[in-house]
Amino acid sequence: MTAHDAIKAGNADFPRRQWYVGAYSHEVSRQPMVRWLLDEPVVFYRLENGDPVALFDRCPHRGLRLSAGTLVGDEIQCTYHGLRFARDGRCTAIPSGGPLSPRLRVTSHPVVERWKWIWIWMGEPELADPSLIPDIAQFGFGNPDWFDEPSGLLSLKANYLLPFENLLDASHISFLHHGLIDAGNVATLPFTLEQQGPSLRVVRAIDQEPISPLTAKTFGFDCDRVNRKIIADATVPNLCGIRVEVAPADDAGKPPQVNQLIVGITPQTRSTTLEFTAVAQSFPFANPNREEDVRNLLMEDVVAMEEIQQLFDRLGPERSIELSVRSAEPAMLMRRLVSRMLDAERGVSPVAVRS
Amino acid sequence: MTAHDAIKAGNADFPRRQWYVGAYSHEVSRQPMVRWLLDEPVVFYRLENGDPVALFDRCPHRGLRLSAGTLVGDEIQCTYHGLRFARDGRCTAIPSGGPLSPRLRVTSHPVVERWKWIWIWMGEPELADPSLIPDIAQFGFGNPDWFDEPSGLLSLKANYLLPFENLLDASHISFLHHGLIDAGNVATLPFTLEQQGPSLRVVRAIDQEPISPLTAKTFGFDCDRVNRKIIADATVPNLCGIRVEVAPADDAGKPPQVNQLIVGITPQTRSTTLEFTAVAQSFPFANPNREEDVRNLLMEDVVAMEEIQQLFDRLGPERSIELSVRSAEPAMLMRRLVSRMLDAERGVSPVAVRS
Amino acid sequence: MTAHDAIKAGNADFPRRQWYVGAYSHEVSRQPMVRWLLDEPVVFYRLENGDPVALFDRCPHRGLRLSAGTLVGDEIQCTYHGLRFARDGRCTAIPSGGPLSPRLRVTSHPVVERWKWIWIWMGEPELADPSLIPDIAQFGFGNPDWFDEPSGLLSLKANYLLPFENLLDASHISFLHHGLIDAGNVATLPFTLEQQGPSLRVVRAIDQEPISPLTAKTFGFDCDRVNRKIIADATVPNLCGIRVEVAPADDAGKPPQVNQLIVGITPQTRSTTLEFTAVAQSFPFANPNREEDVRNLLMEDVVAMEEIQQLFDRLGPERSIELSVRSAEPAMLMRRLVSRMLDAERGVSPVAVRS
Repeated sequence: MTAHDAIKAGNADFPRRQWYVGAYSHEVSRQPMVRWLLDEPVVFYRLENGDPVALFDRCPHRGLRLSAGTLVGDEIQCTYHGLRFARDGRCTAIPSGGPLSPRLRVTSHPVVERWKWIWIWMGEPELADPSLIPDIAQFGFGNPDWFDEPSGLLSLKANYLLPFENLLDASHISFLHHGLIDAGNVATLPFTLEQQGPSLRVVRAIDQEPISPLTAKTFGFDCDRVNRKIIADATVPNLCGIRVEVAPADDAGKPPQVNQLIVGITPQTRSTTLEFTAVAQSFPFANPNREEDVRNLLMEDVVAMEEIQQLFDRLGPERSIELSVRSAEPAMLMRRLVSRMLDAERGVSPVAVRS
Repeated sequence: MTAHDAIKAGNADFPRRQWYVGAYSHEVSRQPMVRWLLDEPVVFYRLENGDPVALFDRCPHRGLRLSAGTLVGDEIQCTYHGLRFARDGRCTAIPSGGPLSPRLRVTSHPVVERWKWIWIWMGEPELADPSLIPDIAQFGFGNPDWFDEPSGLLSLKANYLLPFENLLDASHISFLHHGLIDAGNVATLPFTLEQQGPSLRVVRAIDQEPISPLTAKTFGFDCDRVNRKIIADATVPNLCGIRVEVAPADDAGKPPQVNQLIVGITPQTRSTTLEFTAVAQSFPFANPNREEDVRNLLMEDVVAMEEIQQLFDRLGPERSIELSVRSAEPAMLMRRLVSRMLDAERGVSPVAVRS
Repeated sequence: MTAHDAIKAGNADFPRRQWYVGAYSHEVSRQPMVRWLLDEPVVFYRLENGDPVALFDRCPHRGLRLSAGTLVGDEIQCTYHGLRFARDGRCTAIPSGGPLSPRLRVTSHPVVERWKWIWIWMGEPELADPSLIPDIAQFGFGNPDWFDEPSGLLSLKANYLLPFENLLDASHISFLHHGLIDAGNVATLPFTLEQQGPSLRVVRAIDQEPISPLTAKTFGFDCDRVNRKIIADATVPNLCGIRVEVAPADDAGKPPQVNQLIVGITPQTRSTTLEFTAVAQSFPFANPNREEDVRNLLMEDVVAMEEIQQLFDRLGPERSIELSVRSAEPAMLMRRLVSRMLDAERGVSPVAVRS
């Protein structure tokens, strides 16, 4: 049995010793917010100095969610019997009295705020190493010469491997997005695949492609044909970017303009996933309806992935056989990497992927 | 333990080596349609020559339902990555390239179109024998001297044995349908029961019965009393008909008029069932509201059967004890036949019922 | 392992050999009513002489609920095939014929009507002893010098131990009901705990308490400060009362006025509970909006308890650790009593609590 046979895209487990995007910066405030991540409830809030905090969202006394409570300075107070917890998860006050047992505590998850995202580590806190956070500056985010912004948050009723595989196999755009971002030729393009540790890169290129409506709007081009390169950059298991480089075909000497989508892929359960999307461009935003246009495009994927999940759930793993074709090769490599990460966490293999 | 002890009406398994009504003819077109039958998704469509096709409704590549796709000639194309499948279930095209492995296929279910119903065989295709399809011509359907039409499709949240038992025990009409098709006397009538292979016949007769409102409307009679015969004809496990022969009581020399309801009973899951209804008459349709009247009548049964299923699901099989009274005898025989069919399919017994 | 470790507030089992409030008197009439109690469907109705009856709500013939049927004199007739059952559960008529087997019966649950509540015994009928019904006259109900009335029925999506623990630990009112019935001091009060058989009493007292808005409305006091005593009286596992004695602080010689809430706590399933509430006062009702005010107060508890249950269900028992603080002591004693009752019912221990 090869490693990837161990996981199925409909119910794959997720590595825990990883950083995941947990929230957009603008979502976390002095008002506690609950979010389920990796099968756990997490309460996010900010300290008085602005630092984000993430705690296991359940009072260990009687089990109400802490996020229903209120902040008292830097501490969060349970709304039921008033117990308070500090940013490190320790209980600091029991109004009705009694010893502050060291067992009265909740897990405090390491968090790191970068660009406009808050990354969270859901594994053992002592193993958290911020150097493992994917570098999104390489994709243009935070580059003062570029233009970037967070885009919408998608809540997907599907296993997290499904959006990964969707983004890694661009051949689907000739069918699922036909007429919107493709003239029907991308599916047949050859592609290259490179791997470096947990990073994968898949490149497709086409010249003299009839320009599609959304490409024209996004890049502001008024021409019939373009040269286009589509680059998927994935960091397993938490991020996938799509870089699209486009130049008018009749002006091939000019450097292409770049539109970069990134998607922080964060499992909520084995059958639900959050997609934190963001866009960076090497040129000013031209399309005033870009948020709506991107959302409509991505919703075509969402509908397909949710249907796949529904069918998987109803048929069960045994009857959900998958037979991969050539364009699924990057997806299969991604699954092997995830399998090795899971094996390493379970102690099955001493070899970590990231080394 | 007798055979019928093995099955309970709330969660009985269904024989697969049988023909079931899968669709009305008018439901199947060049627009693919999904329908769950016997715990499987099936996509129905028609070839360019009009022949119906039924395939397992799931692309074996990445698991999207084929019914979300489009027809290209006689083939169905998946909407995700464009794979195409022929009527026999073979994959005939992979746009992104790669070998057409013989493993890349879906099950093609044998289908037979008769009268205005499409029958489907969900067992092993090579065992499908069209001569086993119940003959509904014997009930008047397709008879040029009779009048027939498909009636409504009922979607029932109940195990398929429940409508079978409902139709086989006419004593219920004195209570569940009291005042609509019964004056209260049918429950106490004696009945005869005959069996021939998978076919059962239950006959009740009553003379000088006060005519009920729906009987008067259906038969167009303007009299106070009728002589009525009620004949249930079941073919286990897929069909049950109710033949009602009525003549005015004061004109006993005249042959009775016949109203024949048939119900194709098709399991979807162990707790949901489709009922394909159709009506034939030896005389022209007299009641302009007949569709609504039949539906209202059958909905009294549907409500009762769904309540039984709900209670069964909530109490569980252990607490769902059934104690049969005399009028349940045909139902118990039906259960024994189903048990023998299930045993034969599982190889428990070499004796098939239909022999 | 101590006894209370065996049960968790999110999925605790319930003793069956106990009386529970099954209905308000005004809910039970000549129109059969279904209610799920202790994981069973029960049909309530009244005989022609007005006596209440409670039967297992399922026809043993084909499994429809009897509560869908109609009363014929003192008997209930199934709406499906017309079988009739007497108040003792025996089948008395089969319209389609056949012997009246003694097995054709349903359980008849002992019921006792007291004050405006109907108590029901869901254990073995022969063990029912009305002397075990909690005496609510001791709380003022039925006292001609007092004022009493049934209050609303609450349907709670939470295990029955949660409302018990809620009522036994008054420290929560300083947080969950802060500003409505508390000025923030109750949480820090000491308390006394007494036990006598299945009865617990928890007492808290505070003098010179700033009067809260709902206290002022309920007692009709126009003063700034009051002396208040809060007494929780529980009878495990079926009843909990809250007696509040209040007097204006500047008129300490006057006897306090008493407001007594009682809550009949009845499990429906392991995760749903009914709360039959009622109020008695030593003084006339002063607040015209008392029903709405009590409901709004109790709904703050309901929301919290349902959130606790949701989190319990999602995290599962293993991850739903509870660490008790001092104010949870009465709740832990209550759990030990329930555990001993459950053990006694299972034959684990020969010692019954009530002895």
